[in-house]
Amino acid sequence: MKKHILVIPGDGIGPEVTTWGKAVLEKIAEQFGHQFTYDKGLMGHVAIEATGEPLPEETLDKAKNSDAILFGAVGHAKYDNDPSARVRPEQGLLKIRKELGLYANLRPIMLFDELLDASSLKPEILKGTDILFFRELTGDVYFGEKKRSEDRRTASDLMIYHRYEIERIALKAFEAARVRSKRLCSVDKANVLESSRLWREVVQDMAKEYPDVDTEHMFIDNAAMQLVKNPKKFDVVLTANLFGDILTDEASQIAGSMGMLASASIGDGTGFFEPIHGSAHDIAGQDKANPLASILSVALMLEISFGLTDEARKITSAIDKTLKDGYRTGDIADTKTDPAKILGTKAMGQKVLEFLS
Amino acid sequence: MKKHILVIPGDGIGPEVTTWGKAVLEKIAEQFGHQFTYDKGLMGHVAIEATGEPLPEETLDKAKNSDAILFGAVGHAKYDNDPSARVRPEQGLLKIRKELGLYANLRPIMLFDELLDASSLKPEILKGTDILFFRELTGDVYFGEKKRSEDRRTASDLMIYHRYEIERIALKAFEAARVRSKRLCSVDKANVLESSRLWREVVQDMAKEYPDVDTEHMFIDNAAMQLVKNPKKFDVVLTANLFGDILTDEASQIAGSMGMLASASIGDGTGFFEPIHGSAHDIAGQDKANPLASILSVALMLEISFGLTDEARKITSAIDKTLKDGYRTGDIADTKTDPAKILGTKAMGQKVLEFLS
Ligand SMILES: CC(C)[C@H](C(=O)O)[C@@H](O)C(=O)O
Ligand SMILES: CC(C)[C@H](C(=O)O)[C@@H](O)C(=O)O
Repeated sequence: MKKHILVIPGDGIGPEVTTWGKAVLEKIAEQFGHQFTYDKGLMGHVAIEATGEPLPEETLDKAKNSDAILFGAVGHAKYDNDPSARVRPEQGLLKIRKELGLYANLRPIMLFDELLDASSLKPEILKGTDILFFRELTGDVYFGEKKRSEDRRTASDLMIYHRYEIERIALKAFEAARVRSKRLCSVDKANVLESSRLWREVVQDMAKEYPDVDTEHMFIDNAAMQLVKNPKKFDVVLTANLFGDILTDEASQIAGSMGMLASASIGDGTGFFEPIHGSAHDIAGQDKANPLASILSVALMLEISFGLTDEARKITSAIDKTLKDGYRTGDIADTKTDPAKILGTKAMGQKVLEFLS
Repeated sequence: MKKHILVIPGDGIGPEVTTWGKAVLEKIAEQFGHQFTYDKGLMGHVAIEATGEPLPEETLDKAKNSDAILFGAVGHAKYDNDPSARVRPEQGLLKIRKELGLYANLRPIMLFDELLDASSLKPEILKGTDILFFRELTGDVYFGEKKRSEDRRTASDLMIYHRYEIERIALKAFEAARVRSKRLCSVDKANVLESSRLWREVVQDMAKEYPDVDTEHMFIDNAAMQLVKNPKKFDVVLTANLFGDILTDEASQIAGSMGMLASASIGDGTGFFEPIHGSAHDIAGQDKANPLASILSVALMLEISFGLTDEARKITSAIDKTLKDGYRTGDIADTKTDPAKILGTKAMGQKVLEFLS
């Protein structure tokens, strides 16, 4: 198979972890006889420094002309603490989501048995948890009109949804529920928000076409609570952009660490694959970041964008073996970890490559 | 002390639990020689059934003329599953918050040592956690303009904040931080939302006046994650209405159950005290609800509205003794609980009254 992949390392630990995602892609190509070609694009703080723009036109062009995108992270504390900054790294990410029509963000919460103890949740609460989030990604208060009054004392963001935006993401979630355990939980705040009431109406309407799927509606506050109390009760979770942002980060603790979670953003065109962790500037450049989320992002890319399920499975099983052999990065190590097996980013990436051979 | 208290039992388990909150008030009045008088008001589904309105004028008048309000819960599944319902129980709660100017919702996350094992989080993660949330309660996307397009295919809610709204709640949070551990964490989504950027600006400005308070800013997605990962890192948490709704429900799992958490809504006038759990229709009328959150709401009322700290302490210590003696309602029982000590609502309320004597 011939594929052209754009790599966007971004900021902070982005470049370090993406190096290992790419290394795994190369290894897989070699092993399975695929021809993957690569290009590199700028986005985020590094792009602002180089071009003044968080998403340069050149990167967007490359993105549109690639078969899939492997992304690292964007963000920088400099902007976080300056609420009046006009240009911000995150704008690059939001813009590429919108421009590529990446309306569906899939975040699987997979639990490697070896990491049951790495979580702050009790192992008996976690065991057996397997959730697939469908987060809407190009609508909601993220993209609604933003306003600041002239005296700068009032600020607003419009939380807005159109029926078609809800329908297309719900369709993906219902289809996934159908081939999984046939349970779908749609999360909203319909007791307060009009946009949530539209959300619920649409999901209720579509549920009629999926009588084989057991559809439930839950308020976001309750969902945030239930996710800690009893994560096993969830299978496919469908939710809006903002609620999905919050719930999936919270859910990362089920997997032991954000360093273990990958995500796929798909929609009208090129798929976009990224770890759910951010730029983590506090550990950037220190060979501390966990490369597994980037490597798992590559597995998602192979499966979802290229339909290469054997290749994807080979990657997850290499990670599984790495963990079974006791190797950990700092974020997933616990008191029982053999200190000699706590690895840096590079050594961990190397281990996975070894187990791929 | 002479005080006039309005009791609003509301829907679902509201009446059952509020009965015990009121019984504790009566007991305390008797023991400490206070003269508390009571009135009763309708709100929520029960009010809609009786008057057509979720918050009848009469209840609002009584509320304005009382010294404090003890509230149960509102809500009914009937409306939850009907996104087009015009009149809803929750409107009563939102309206009373607005009309009484209850802009600050205080939600203390207290951990009774006896309940360390009732949580899905590991005891060693929980131990020592003590968080006080300040949730803004009369602004945000809750109260911004709601719109539905004529073809009903587009819906929106305006997420909006004015500087004064942020200042007055931040003031309360900073003052509380000053007398607690001098740490304040303000939660927003300033990397995406303009209203959050205003929020962050205002909190940054005010932080300058509290150099003794260690002020941190955190994004909501990260906060939802950290709350599970390491709840001890939080002390005073300051946040907006929607984010506070989500975070405090999530945080309820730290206390083992929603059935253990009380909240105080304060502002310009009469204080409003309520459990954070909802109407829980699934267990309503079955003598299963945990009355402790309502009883703890009464403790908050005595302390915050009336300045009666000894009385408040007497209540929490009676609850502590009840728990130490092994008594539990179903929601906080675990495998180690003596089955003979798993009590219903009434028996649990009685136990607390006994320990008050
Ligand atoms: C960086 C930020 C804009 C982004 C978001 O909120 O969508 C991130 O938190 C995510 O979840 O991908
Ligand atoms: C019932 C509902 C409107 C309410 C809210 O969202 O504020 C509740 O969840 C709460 O937290 O008090």
